[in-house]
Amino acid sequence: MSFDRLIEKIAEKQNPTVAGLDPKLDYVPEYIKKKAFEKYGETLKGAAKALWKFNKGLIDGLCDIVPAVKPQAAYYEMYGYEGMKTLYKTQEYARSKGLFVITDGKRNDIGSTMEAYAAAHLGKVQVGGEKYEPFICDALTVNGYLGSDCIKPVIKVCNQYDKGLFVLAKTSNPSSGELQDQKIGDTAIYEIMGDMCEEWGKEIEGKYGYSGVGIVAGATYPEQIAVLRSRLPHTFFLIPGYGAQGASAKDISAAFDQHGLGGIVNSSRGIMCAYKKEGCNEKDYAEAARREAIRMRDEIMGYVHKIEL
Amino acid sequence: MSFDRLIEKIAEKQNPTVAGLDPKLDYVPEYIKKKAFEKYGETLKGAAKALWKFNKGLIDGLCDIVPAVKPQAAYYEMYGYEGMKTLYKTQEYARSKGLFVITDGKRNDIGSTMEAYAAAHLGKVQVGGEKYEPFICDALTVNGYLGSDCIKPVIKVCNQYDKGLFVLAKTSNPSSGELQDQKIGDTAIYEIMGDMCEEWGKEIEGKYGYSGVGIVAGATYPEQIAVLRSRLPHTFFLIPGYGAQGASAKDISAAFDQHGLGGIVNSSRGIMCAYKKEGCNEKDYAEAARREAIRMRDEIMGYVHKIEL
Repeated sequence: MSFDRLIEKIAEKQNPTVAGLDPKLDYVPEYIKKKAFEKYGETLKGAAKALWKFNKGLIDGLCDIVPAVKPQAAYYEMYGYEGMKTLYKTQEYARSKGLFVITDGKRNDIGSTMEAYAAAHLGKVQVGGEKYEPFICDALTVNGYLGSDCIKPVIKVCNQYDKGLFVLAKTSNPSSGELQDQKIGDTAIYEIMGDMCEEWGKEIEGKYGYSGVGIVAGATYPEQIAVLRSRLPHTFFLIPGYGAQGASAKDISAAFDQHGLGGIVNSSRGIMCAYKKEGCNEKDYAEAARREAIRMRDEIMGYVHKIEL
Repeated sequence: MSFDRLIEKIAEKQNPTVAGLDPKLDYVPEYIKKKAFEKYGETLKGAAKALWKFNKGLIDGLCDIVPAVKPQAAYYEMYGYEGMKTLYKTQEYARSKGLFVITDGKRNDIGSTMEAYAAAHLGKVQVGGEKYEPFICDALTVNGYLGSDCIKPVIKVCNQYDKGLFVLAKTSNPSSGELQDQKIGDTAIYEIMGDMCEEWGKEIEGKYGYSGVGIVAGATYPEQIAVLRSRLPHTFFLIPGYGAQGASAKDISAAFDQHGLGGIVNSSRGIMCAYKKEGCNEKDYAEAARREAIRMRDEIMGYVHKIEL
């Protein structure tokens, strides 16, 4: 059901894109870092505070343009538990601004352990008589190499809390084909993974034709996106690889159905570092991000045309 | 080179086992929880403090018996950033007690993002003029579904900081075969993944014949362990699934070479919850864990016989 909420936000904003929040410290304007380091020192805490300030500005600048944000867990883990606190605050703030939050964690493990990841990111955790949300998101990316055991506990939590998941099928990186393009009989592994998602999705059906079990399908592989779209009519696509990784709006157009639904395209560096590319004053970083998000929206909508529920 | 250090610790203790630190709150003795909740409330912080106390006791009880511990990241993430602080403290304390620390995170992502995970867990992170270890471990488990891009940045950091990695090949869960046992021509995917690890391992050679790129091979699949051992002569195995998941010492004996080297067997629940199984006073949980670790060592050494460098 989760992707119903995402689809409604996409239609409302007429914008099938998501802003990736992958805040490398190099991306953060100097004045933000300076202030954080003055207060907390050149420490992991200082770095984490700078990232939080940066993210908050980006969310403020983007929240009426994009339907969703996608924080990448790695860039928060990179600053230790202080970084994970910034992940939590970022998720909480994005949610408060009405954004759909996709945590890109690519988590995976055996069933009993996957329950812990699902509770951590999508559900609630019991401590004595109280319940808490350790992290906050609407959908989590996961890796399906371990099979159904790894996915079923996530589906259970998604049904309970109205959330969704994206399983890696065809990733955007250059070496993704080493395993994912290998064929079992006539069928590539990324297609088999997609088929499993289409099947798992029957356990979380949505009212706009798409289940709550999506896939990750890289924009850098337009042919495979087309194959997956025709093969998986009820599966929603999270599409990384646009912009900095080299894919164009045309490359991803096959992901969308005749109503303009079916996928959401991510850009991280392109949006976060727009102020560097523009060469504007770094204090205008959020405005530059907004301009880039609008440009991206318009470029992609040039192929998608109109999004109708 | 990292697994040289692990192998030396295994030989010194004549014990090819690792104690998993997967601290569900249900596993923690009541007196520890009570004290933590009295001080910090029934909160994520209270839970995280209880886990830390529990882990510290386990490490004290086990550190002269086992060569290594394996904290499972999911059970720390489950308590939010406070839980991640407990992960850090657990890693730091285990290291101070001379234990080899394997963080079971099954992390994976595209190259540039994988650099962030590698820095977070195995390397150091630069903040201004300072460098920090956000988390502390000697080896990290990773998922290779994305191919070389995902593994090479980790190998680079391992070479730089004398660390290692374990790539998922054949996992211990019931559904692992859905994808991993499928055949490409005559070769199963778990074998292909193993072959890739044997190849990647050439970039981190070790002096005892094993590289720094290991695999995860579930004890619950003894036939596949035997296949992998004969196929991958230079690859070290991390073997989960013993005990609570159902595998016996005999099931894993094929993982070891004629010198008793080649693998390390994990037990988590069996060790952590030994006090419940014994029915002893819960305040003796660490002693009970120690007795179970000794029993496990002796059982496995019944098949491995002697470990010689």
